[in-house]
Amino acid sequence: MISLEEARSRILSQLHPTGAETVALAAGWNRVLARSVLARLTQPPADVSAMDGYAVRAADAVGGAMLRLAGEAPAGRPFAGAVGSGEAVRIFTGGFVPEGADAILIQEDARAEAGNIQVVEGVKQGQWIRRRGLDFAEGAELLPVGRRLTARDIGLAAAGNHPWLVVHRRPRIGILATGDEIALPGEALPSGGIVSSNAHALAALVASAGGEASILPIAPDDAEAIASLASGGGHDLLVTTGGASVGDHDLVQKALGTRGFALDFWNIAMRPGKPLIWGRLGATPVLGLPGNPVSAMVCATVFLLPALARMQGLPDAAPPTIRALAGVDLPENDRRADHLRATLALDAQGEWIATPAGRQDSSMLAVLARADGLILRAPHAPALAKGGAVEVIALAALGV
Amino acid sequence: MISLEEARSRILSQLHPTGAETVALAAGWNRVLARSVLARLTQPPADVSAMDGYAVRAADAVGGAMLRLAGEAPAGRPFAGAVGSGEAVRIFTGGFVPEGADAILIQEDARAEAGNIQVVEGVKQGQWIRRRGLDFAEGAELLPVGRRLTARDIGLAAAGNHPWLVVHRRPRIGILATGDEIALPGEALPSGGIVSSNAHALAALVASAGGEASILPIAPDDAEAIASLASGGGHDLLVTTGGASVGDHDLVQKALGTRGFALDFWNIAMRPGKPLIWGRLGATPVLGLPGNPVSAMVCATVFLLPALARMQGLPDAAPPTIRALAGVDLPENDRRADHLRATLALDAQGEWIATPAGRQDSSMLAVLARADGLILRAPHAPALAKGGAVEVIALAALGV
Repeated sequence: MISLEEARSRILSQLHPTGAETVALAAGWNRVLARSVLARLTQPPADVSAMDGYAVRAADAVGGAMLRLAGEAPAGRPFAGAVGSGEAVRIFTGGFVPEGADAILIQEDARAEAGNIQVVEGVKQGQWIRRRGLDFAEGAELLPVGRRLTARDIGLAAAGNHPWLVVHRRPRIGILATGDEIALPGEALPSGGIVSSNAHALAALVASAGGEASILPIAPDDAEAIASLASGGGHDLLVTTGGASVGDHDLVQKALGTRGFALDFWNIAMRPGKPLIWGRLGATPVLGLPGNPVSAMVCATVFLLPALARMQGLPDAAPPTIRALAGVDLPENDRRADHLRATLALDAQGEWIATPAGRQDSSMLAVLARADGLILRAPHAPALAKGGAVEVIALAALGV
Repeated sequence: MISLEEARSRILSQLHPTGAETVALAAGWNRVLARSVLARLTQPPADVSAMDGYAVRAADAVGGAMLRLAGEAPAGRPFAGAVGSGEAVRIFTGGFVPEGADAILIQEDARAEAGNIQVVEGVKQGQWIRRRGLDFAEGAELLPVGRRLTARDIGLAAAGNHPWLVVHRRPRIGILATGDEIALPGEALPSGGIVSSNAHALAALVASAGGEASILPIAPDDAEAIASLASGGGHDLLVTTGGASVGDHDLVQKALGTRGFALDFWNIAMRPGKPLIWGRLGATPVLGLPGNPVSAMVCATVFLLPALARMQGLPDAAPPTIRALAGVDLPENDRRADHLRATLALDAQGEWIATPAGRQDSSMLAVLARADGLILRAPHAPALAKGGAVEVIALAALGV
């Protein structure tokens, strides 16, 4: 058995970022930049007004002064001339400050009178002027390589005049569920069978993390059928579920073995989800998840999410955790890293309280769906009294 | 001026959840259920083994006993007969416990010998048996109406045998950017013009929150053109940007007025983003955001995200906040609710430290993109010393 951290690090070390592709700005949300975005213009392109009011010479615009209205400068239509001595130009937010003016008299501080402006409150030089390049200068890096793009970033790339973005291609993840006993929802169930839930749950997880999932047809417990479906190719990573356990029915390893599968490891000191296969079938990395739906989702959170991040050019990292206080006493842990399904609630002090479900049986998918997070318990962690600090993977925040 | 909370509550009170539609299970991620998901079967469908081993009668399986191997019961292929006295049946995780057996002897505690099994470690009655219905019973509510579906929920709906889900239709949001001075990225810029960034940033925000955005052609500063584009219909909500300010160029209200626009309010005690229009054009609610990109995104976070949630059948709520400690002294606030762009960093104690950007000028989009969150400052909030507790909207976690 190897540790969870070693397993994750061995998985990540064998994955590489996908190649780059060009997408329209509108399709860039949540994608990861493969090329930095540099400003193609300076913003604002000139000194502009920060307010609606009048562009003036500060030396003229003292309290009580009367200024002649020489024209106007709305945003997008710069005033052609210059503001001369004793003059003012009507200006609006974003309008270019005309030549000669060095301050903005806001409209609340002026009184307009038939072609003239009376200054009610004097101005200081530079007042309410946004300098050219205040937001960014042409050539400046707006967004770095490796950034997952937010809605704000899309706005900033647009402001920098980019209709296209260069991002990492979505990793293509093949998902192969195996087992004689499983059938897709709505299909006729074999006697003694259960409905397959892993493939669709994993596909949702892959999509939410920026990947592109293909759900392969369910493979029966037959080495030739498994090998044939697994060898279809076209995936950056093949994920199998089922057939990974220690029993006589761990067919996936045997099946892939007939096609030259190179096993790296298959046994991790974690719970739920001990039997996890990692290896390579030809050029395709293969992650073999347990068939148990709870184990499959916990292993996907712990290993597949970081794998998807790495394949998109993001830094290697464990799933993010939040700090919480244990809602009950937690017993000493054994040698396996444990992941306790738990609810999260805020207490009166604004602290998260994480309370594990009373029953952690790994077959209970409903308990997983109702959980807010997974409390992490390190191997051999000592007993922890109620109120002690724990780290929790907040699942919904990860799209899981 | 009305308060931010009153504005949000008036906006939400005039919006309604969209109708229901049926989507394939695979398309259900992040959608909101309009009909609850009830289990269509019992899971597990019978008592099943929790381990690989042998189904036995506990009374027989005492340490040292020798049991006759009567057959096998892998998952999906129940053993047809019963386990008689002195007998054992090979069983695998998920296999149905055969009639007569009342415990599982795990394989690590047995020794297999030519058609027989020697018990190394005795078993207790019921040991390693998962009872019928342990996960859920037929008819039980697996997922309630109004739930935004996670990847785990998709798995649970699958396990409950649902190939289809009934969810709220994605709200259709029309986005209309106005202004003579703006052009789309890559298009020829008018002299004195700037690149339009709001429409694409807002569309990304809408999509990330579960809506469907249509970016309408940019409207010039012309009442007739604005009115015509805004009246196209087909949207659950029309969002405009620009033309909402107090100046002479607040055209949106005038333009829509020609088509019977019913204004509710337009002035909110908040910063950035004071001039915000809320009203109705015929049957279509209209949210008029400021043209300033920072104000537009902050107002979208504060008003449009909750609006999208409400239109999808989620409960009314302000954007979620996290608790942090102020990284610098914060001055007393004036009468407007403030939203300070800030970075977030964890200190050694695991507390979030929120440090506002040195310059909060609302034209600085790059500062917004680089921020991790918005520190909320209530109207008239007293000065707060460094280290005091603040609430922060964590933007990236919201897809913004």
